[in-house]
Amino acid sequence: MAEHTVSLVKSLKKLLDDKKYQTLKDILTTMNGADIAAVFEEMDEERTPLLFRLLPKELAAETFAELSPELQEHLIRGFSDKELREVVSELYVDDAADLVEEMPASVVKRILAQADPDMRREINEILRYPENSAGSIMTTEYVSLRPNMTIAEALQRIRRTGVDKETIYTCYVTKERRLIGTVSVKDMLLAPDENTVVSEIMDENVISVSTLTDQEEVAQMLSKYNFLALPVVDTDGRMVGIVTFDDAIDVLVEETTEDIEKMAGMLPSEKTYLRSTPWDLFRHRIPWLLLLMVSATFTGMIITRFESALAAQVVLTAFIPMLMDTGGNSGSQASVTVIRALSLGELELRDLPKVVWKEVQTAVLCGVALATLCFVKIMVFDRIILGNTDITVMTAFVVCLTMAVTVLVAKVVGCTLPLFAKRLGFDPAVMASPFITTIVDALSLLVYFGIANALLF
Amino acid sequence: MAEHTVSLVKSLKKLLDDKKYQTLKDILTTMNGADIAAVFEEMDEERTPLLFRLLPKELAAETFAELSPELQEHLIRGFSDKELREVVSELYVDDAADLVEEMPASVVKRILAQADPDMRREINEILRYPENSAGSIMTTEYVSLRPNMTIAEALQRIRRTGVDKETIYTCYVTKERRLIGTVSVKDMLLAPDENTVVSEIMDENVISVSTLTDQEEVAQMLSKYNFLALPVVDTDGRMVGIVTFDDAIDVLVEETTEDIEKMAGMLPSEKTYLRSTPWDLFRHRIPWLLLLMVSATFTGMIITRFESALAAQVVLTAFIPMLMDTGGNSGSQASVTVIRALSLGELELRDLPKVVWKEVQTAVLCGVALATLCFVKIMVFDRIILGNTDITVMTAFVVCLTMAVTVLVAKVVGCTLPLFAKRLGFDPAVMASPFITTIVDALSLLVYFGIANALLF
Repeated sequence: MAEHTVSLVKSLKKLLDDKKYQTLKDILTTMNGADIAAVFEEMDEERTPLLFRLLPKELAAETFAELSPELQEHLIRGFSDKELREVVSELYVDDAADLVEEMPASVVKRILAQADPDMRREINEILRYPENSAGSIMTTEYVSLRPNMTIAEALQRIRRTGVDKETIYTCYVTKERRLIGTVSVKDMLLAPDENTVVSEIMDENVISVSTLTDQEEVAQMLSKYNFLALPVVDTDGRMVGIVTFDDAIDVLVEETTEDIEKMAGMLPSEKTYLRSTPWDLFRHRIPWLLLLMVSATFTGMIITRFESALAAQVVLTAFIPMLMDTGGNSGSQASVTVIRALSLGELELRDLPKVVWKEVQTAVLCGVALATLCFVKIMVFDRIILGNTDITVMTAFVVCLTMAVTVLVAKVVGCTLPLFAKRLGFDPAVMASPFITTIVDALSLLVYFGIANALLF
Repeated sequence: MAEHTVSLVKSLKKLLDDKKYQTLKDILTTMNGADIAAVFEEMDEERTPLLFRLLPKELAAETFAELSPELQEHLIRGFSDKELREVVSELYVDDAADLVEEMPASVVKRILAQADPDMRREINEILRYPENSAGSIMTTEYVSLRPNMTIAEALQRIRRTGVDKETIYTCYVTKERRLIGTVSVKDMLLAPDENTVVSEIMDENVISVSTLTDQEEVAQMLSKYNFLALPVVDTDGRMVGIVTFDDAIDVLVEETTEDIEKMAGMLPSEKTYLRSTPWDLFRHRIPWLLLLMVSATFTGMIITRFESALAAQVVLTAFIPMLMDTGGNSGSQASVTVIRALSLGELELRDLPKVVWKEVQTAVLCGVALATLCFVKIMVFDRIILGNTDITVMTAFVVCLTMAVTVLVAKVVGCTLPLFAKRLGFDPAVMASPFITTIVDALSLLVYFGIANALLF
């Protein structure tokens, strides 16, 4: 929570205690919806309805859309039917659909009862689409134009219908509900003649997505083409809505957070950190910890098999953590790089041979550098400075050879697993650090004891 | 590289071989700049100048801005002065500044020589600002209005000057170059009376950033307020430029990629994966691998110190990988969660006590669950099913107690280090998995041998 929010919350509480409602109203109306929402989240829940009622209608809806589902529910439970109707009618339809999706059934019933029939129909349409699809995040409030309108008529239409649209700046030209072109307000304003018809200045190379396109792909397309909004068409090619850049930014941020959580061995969470209870955190973190603990049984079994060798050469044990960590780090470097490139759309499955070859070359460079320095470190620091005379040149050689091989194995495993996961329809992000670490741990121990067996015993 | 790009590149090459330039021109003009750039990147370098010359002026500039620096340089070296002047004059000034920043000195000289004096001045202004600041990513091409203009006059001004502006949809009202309000084209178009003056409908609660504000903060503000653009003011409060949403999206994606690379123990890279050579990858990955290999010396020293104890109870060695991995995973879960919350602005340093308390509670839940299941696993699977009779109830107890303590230590270290890094002015992302793993490895071994010493010997 930012410093200035803290002090603002304090002042507002004081003003509430003193019942200075006019002052409160004056302060709140100078603020932005997103900022008011941040303040509300820091207030005691029971005081928020009073503050909310001080907001003018439009600002109230803007603030409401930015609140957490918990606080939205609390406010709705306190609303009269009339208040609820006012807020719902001011919401953009995609925000209203989000609200309906997140509220418990009893609250949803009240919301739908207060929405006007048009909005109810549109909310239901959006809710029909699968989660994370373009259809589920689009809004149905866009400006559509006919191709034979003149620019003057088009601007007139925008003036008449624009107030409720999420964006008016890109307009969609349709013919029998089919999308045939786009035209921007900039092009219309800057056109030399107001009597030009829309079809003459519209851009016919329309880039659109289907209702079922994954939201992450939609966000990436918007970012690639620098569009304000992308049109969404149904399977019959009819235009049904638009996804605007602000929703695309939210999707990008959410999907990246999910990727990062998965890469660190956690189930993705929809709550922010400060809002998550320890129980939430526990539920999202324990599955991978358990799985990895159980899979570590293999490393244990490998060590047990070589117990007698280790008892004879205890000095070998001291290098196990270093070998395992270096392998794990090398592997997760490769996997994380590949996962990020996949999710930015820079890599495809067909690039696998190129990726493996690049990683093999990198691994040779890293392996030689690490093994050389490790040899020097062991002979100079561990043997001479620390005086560990159990370490022979042969031991150092075994450790360094293992290190080079481990780095190679780790990089190859690290770069191939995410690509295979994608091929099999899994999320590549799951194949990141913890998973790879466990596999590479087992492999590095096998390599270590294999080489030690061949050269030392 | 996407499937459809591959087949398109093939067709274009064929058409080039057959010298079907008119067909090529027809195809390219139906495409978007970003898509043409993607195709160019896949062509042989020497064929791109020919293709580029087929593009109409505006599309050529749009494509040019999306190309990689390598290809931009190749094209410029082939341009005549006239061609260079045409491309540069069509570029938005922020793209031109990026270009100047990335090209070698000899090319920069040619670019600046071909830019008109106004653009040269604006490029130089943008380049004055520190890297990653709002000033360095802003554009100076925005619409400014006077407060006493009527809406009709304002629209007239947009028509006259709008063509070169990066966005016309949000206009900035200034008085003696000081920003006093914003007004959107939507508000102007939808206003009932064209003779209303701008100052009456403008929004005076201006949210702006300073030229020195960090670009990540700018991007987060844009995403928070859902703005099309944010105004940038200098230290004297004078308006100098705007940052548009498309640049903000690029910043968000870049900064997240950097965070992810740092979290996986790599130096951030500006090149995409497929464009990086093995040598690039090596240089970005080896520093952390070396550092971590050297720091693993500590774990080695700890094991060496307890060598005699391990020789007496070799069975303890088998559990080292499991304990180290569980500790490492627990720690990186906590650190990655905190790092992400910090970079999304959800957490501040002042939240440290709350964070630690939350992690302690989570650690207790995870620790108890893991230790219990681990105990069952060791007694049933390792002892009975695998028949490892060296394992006593006491050994199992030592392992499980170590596990619970390690999880607690790992979570606390994992959540505090990123916050301290931020306090000291470092990037918290550096405090992620590899670093925490090494610290937690050493701590978990100390706990392990400490508990074993107290209970077993």
